[in-house]
Amino acid sequence: MKIPELSDINAAYERIKPYIHKTPVLTSRLLNEHFGCELFFKCENFQKVGAFKFRGATNAVLSLSAEERARGVVTHSSGNHAAALALASRMNGVKDNIVMSENAPAVKINAVAGYGAAITFCKPTQLAREETTRMIMEKTGATLIHPYDNFDVICGQGTAALELLGGKDDLEFIIAPIGGGGLMSGTSTCVRGMNTKIKVIGAEPANADDAFRSFYEGRIYPSVNPLTVADGLLTSLSELTFSIIRSRVDAIYTVSEESITECMLLVWERMKIIIEPSSATVLAVIKENPDMFRGRKAGLIISGGNVDFRKLPF
Amino acid sequence: MKIPELSDINAAYERIKPYIHKTPVLTSRLLNEHFGCELFFKCENFQKVGAFKFRGATNAVLSLSAEERARGVVTHSSGNHAAALALASRMNGVKDNIVMSENAPAVKINAVAGYGAAITFCKPTQLAREETTRMIMEKTGATLIHPYDNFDVICGQGTAALELLGGKDDLEFIIAPIGGGGLMSGTSTCVRGMNTKIKVIGAEPANADDAFRSFYEGRIYPSVNPLTVADGLLTSLSELTFSIIRSRVDAIYTVSEESITECMLLVWERMKIIIEPSSATVLAVIKENPDMFRGRKAGLIISGGNVDFRKLPF
Repeated sequence: MKIPELSDINAAYERIKPYIHKTPVLTSRLLNEHFGCELFFKCENFQKVGAFKFRGATNAVLSLSAEERARGVVTHSSGNHAAALALASRMNGVKDNIVMSENAPAVKINAVAGYGAAITFCKPTQLAREETTRMIMEKTGATLIHPYDNFDVICGQGTAALELLGGKDDLEFIIAPIGGGGLMSGTSTCVRGMNTKIKVIGAEPANADDAFRSFYEGRIYPSVNPLTVADGLLTSLSELTFSIIRSRVDAIYTVSEESITECMLLVWERMKIIIEPSSATVLAVIKENPDMFRGRKAGLIISGGNVDFRKLPF
Repeated sequence: MKIPELSDINAAYERIKPYIHKTPVLTSRLLNEHFGCELFFKCENFQKVGAFKFRGATNAVLSLSAEERARGVVTHSSGNHAAALALASRMNGVKDNIVMSENAPAVKINAVAGYGAAITFCKPTQLAREETTRMIMEKTGATLIHPYDNFDVICGQGTAALELLGGKDDLEFIIAPIGGGGLMSGTSTCVRGMNTKIKVIGAEPANADDAFRSFYEGRIYPSVNPLTVADGLLTSLSELTFSIIRSRVDAIYTVSEESITECMLLVWERMKIIIEPSSATVLAVIKENPDMFRGRKAGLIISGGNVDFRKLPF
């Protein structure tokens, strides 16, 4: 199991830089007053395909050999990684196959279809996703680009923190959401490599607290039928992301569904930007732990902005 | 009736510059492809209080005499102007009284209350608003800062176009929404003064087409019980805004409710920014008149981003 280091993230950044957006870091006087601390929002909702996932997918596609490129790629994803891989593949002339849950949000299915990917739908279980993917791999010889259990994907995801710290070196905390752990692995690897004083914190819905339990109990718990509005955080850690998170993350906090919805609405209303529920978990950590952050500077990785507006939680 | 000129807008800009946000001009490759033209979004949704109205209100407050300041200000407004005047007053130590319709969106009432303004509610009719306002003026000696029938307010609103043209001088069209006509008056005055080649276009809901009819028939039609999602565009032109718009605007286009909702959703989904329905009218003009804009460069004044998320039109 090859563990990424800061140098790998730097290399990924050089590789993907011409393809990605360098997303803005936004601040809000109103939210700073509201929470009593200084917040720096790294806005991956403005990334291509509306999510940080484009960074990892692009790095993975660009890291393929010529032979692998010719055979194409395949992945299973609840949404953002699917769109990301579809666009990254199209931009690089690589054929892509996407396995999606039949209950994925319409906005995400439409995005993937819009990039010309071949979509195969399956039941919304980890097992069904993996079986269907294996079938496609056997048939086509395509390379699996796993949404997070993948060295190159993790290195790509870490470049969001790289950009954030590049422009802002006095942060005391960096908070990112945890689903399968790809963003958290990349983020923690980057932060640990650049600045050992910054606390790296993971945010997870209490209703999908598998990473929280895994982190504090020292073994991987699978995510079993999680019920949360944060539809990007339903997946389980892998051996790779668990081992990185375990050694490089300082703490994981769980947050309530009410906090997630409230914080999402707060950002929509006050900052006038669309963030998805998964992204609101990081602000919910601030909201639920006011004493820890009072008067401090925190960088928040806003993972994406893909929302199904016809299924809002309010 | 004193008609503003470009020099007045320049003077207003010098006056308000330290207080306002210089809002970004955003572009979207996806929307450019979608509509087949180049669009430049002047994002007043990121202005203080979430709307261009803060420009006009600030200019009006800063233009008061010392004696007028001491007596305070009063206004009636369906929402954004109320919040704008409340904040502009607070920032300058001026007492403000706001008359609001009892059916104003909760998000706008909360914003006004949050700035510490004294709110008086009234029936949602032009007459009730004016009566209630007159009563407060008689009682307190406060100066009326009308939402749009006011020279200083119009000059302030024109500064959004000033910033847009300052950074982008090759536009062929500028489109702004028309409610009472304050933004359109300021915008057209600015554009006419700076560049006579740019076409200045007004956008209005077909269900609130009083400015359209006034413009093309040469006399002011009042807005009677308009039924539109564009809740910022319910008011009627005044003599002042009508006379400016008549001589400086090239055309007014009406748009359907379906187009307004569709364009609002498109901006939310693709650009990940919150714009209010009134702002979506300008993009709806592009959508409903594709031949006119194909291959052309258009600046769109995005008037605001204050949306009541519990009353969405989709």
